[in-house]
Amino acid sequence: MNPTHPQRGELTLIRRLAAHLAGGAGPVVPFGDDMAALDGGRLLWTTDMLMAGVDFDPLQHAPEAVGRKAMAVNLSDCAAVAATPRVALLAVALSNRLTMDEAERLCRGAADCAAEFGCRLVGGDTNSWDQPTVVCVTIAASIDPGHAPVLRSGARPGDRILLTGRVGGSILGRHMTFTPRVNLARAIRDALHPTAMIDISDGLARDLGHILEASRCGAALRSDALHAAIHDDARTLAASTGRDALDHALCDGEDFELIVTVPGGTPESATLALGLLPVGQITEEPGLFMVAPDGFRTPIEPRGWEHFT
Amino acid sequence: MNPTHPQRGELTLIRRLAAHLAGGAGPVVPFGDDMAALDGGRLLWTTDMLMAGVDFDPLQHAPEAVGRKAMAVNLSDCAAVAATPRVALLAVALSNRLTMDEAERLCRGAADCAAEFGCRLVGGDTNSWDQPTVVCVTIAASIDPGHAPVLRSGARPGDRILLTGRVGGSILGRHMTFTPRVNLARAIRDALHPTAMIDISDGLARDLGHILEASRCGAALRSDALHAAIHDDARTLAASTGRDALDHALCDGEDFELIVTVPGGTPESATLALGLLPVGQITEEPGLFMVAPDGFRTPIEPRGWEHFT
Repeated sequence: MNPTHPQRGELTLIRRLAAHLAGGAGPVVPFGDDMAALDGGRLLWTTDMLMAGVDFDPLQHAPEAVGRKAMAVNLSDCAAVAATPRVALLAVALSNRLTMDEAERLCRGAADCAAEFGCRLVGGDTNSWDQPTVVCVTIAASIDPGHAPVLRSGARPGDRILLTGRVGGSILGRHMTFTPRVNLARAIRDALHPTAMIDISDGLARDLGHILEASRCGAALRSDALHAAIHDDARTLAASTGRDALDHALCDGEDFELIVTVPGGTPESATLALGLLPVGQITEEPGLFMVAPDGFRTPIEPRGWEHFT
Repeated sequence: MNPTHPQRGELTLIRRLAAHLAGGAGPVVPFGDDMAALDGGRLLWTTDMLMAGVDFDPLQHAPEAVGRKAMAVNLSDCAAVAATPRVALLAVALSNRLTMDEAERLCRGAADCAAEFGCRLVGGDTNSWDQPTVVCVTIAASIDPGHAPVLRSGARPGDRILLTGRVGGSILGRHMTFTPRVNLARAIRDALHPTAMIDISDGLARDLGHILEASRCGAALRSDALHAAIHDDARTLAASTGRDALDHALCDGEDFELIVTVPGGTPESATLALGLLPVGQITEEPGLFMVAPDGFRTPIEPRGWEHFT
């Protein structure tokens, strides 16, 4: 429940693993992108694990809400590459404090959330133990005919950077109730031909950083546009944390909005029609900067939530 | 580390879920079988979660052995339906007592075990927390052209029941080091056209019970044949538990040998050539019995390990 640590590095572990695993034919989707390729690339899949006390609070969140979130974070990974979720598996290590009825409610929460997006829960593994509950969902998703997955690596200097919604302060509740942008992602793909996408799980600055690293470029965010993208929850939270609302918008995890980059020539009317919020531009110069209306540039630290701290 | 509890029921939960999920087109593979169908049935997938203190002992088992087991139990599910494992995902909630090096060794153990069977680890999710380690692997496997998955539901009265190896006492170490019968399963499929298969995770009696339930029939195990199928570890364990070695052979979990049923007319030379151990016969009469050489019949309780106790 604390999405702002320093870190020693999930990314580091992923890199070391990727180095170990490299060698065969390169995967269609690079190791570490939002989804991994299956069966030659038409099917992608993703897995995400939630832990009680870290990703949800078993005293505060109802079992169905926990199941729903476990499914929704995986659906958000599907959205991040504009894939269509097809089937899901659910593996659980349930705290033996849960009743059978609560266990079933958790599973139903996951199944019902999947069904909302046309995805079927088709199997899984149920376990219990005397430790906090862990829930792991895996989703297989397909890429619609005539399309390719939208990766993190396609952003180019001059591209515009957009968000699917306001960000920050999700810890106040939205991290459990957000709508995965599955349907909007495909609409964006069809209308805007985005060059890169990612969902915000680790924080706007950090997840945009993943795009910049994979695409080998930098970004300049406009401070006035960023201010318009601050969620009310970020302001509410800022009042109690004493931090700046903008800091929460840039660094809080689990917004699960998408960061989208589109070619510079994309008409603003097209992005407005989809409700997207412009926040800046991809630059050739590496690094992530905030640019004030007077042109003053401030570097943005890619802080945010990272596991394996 | 204690595979012999009474239980309130993983099966019950699976049944309640299956009832909730039924409604659309029925899956190619029934919910609750060893693998679930993906993409019309040519691809199957499975997920299994291991928990520290339940499925392995972090003080006793090296990280690579833990990663290996997490992969191997899923490969065993592939073997159970004679599928060819293709790609795997690994999600972990690592105890923050693990060093980065140990975390990497765990992941390498999983990747290397997958590679032994031609399966590639292509992605995952890494997390850490202040609780015991949880490891969840998902594998997608393909059914070779011209074949169908070998399900639990095809056993018929008169079929012979065979094991791929001796059973019991795996807790003495084999539960961490077993060879998943991936390659043998396909050889069995090609040579014997089995009617049903399952891997022994919950115990011989219980897992045979799953076949009997899905196939709506019973089984008679020959006591002399069963005695020949008792693993030396079961005898060693019996000496310390005071239970009968046969009881360990029937009820201990995590042997990960396959139970195979083949048509009654299958020549014994063909089953011997694959090293299979005959243990009995499928019967029309429901229930599971042990039959002595003099014909005396004893009912066998389908006890064994079940999670969610």
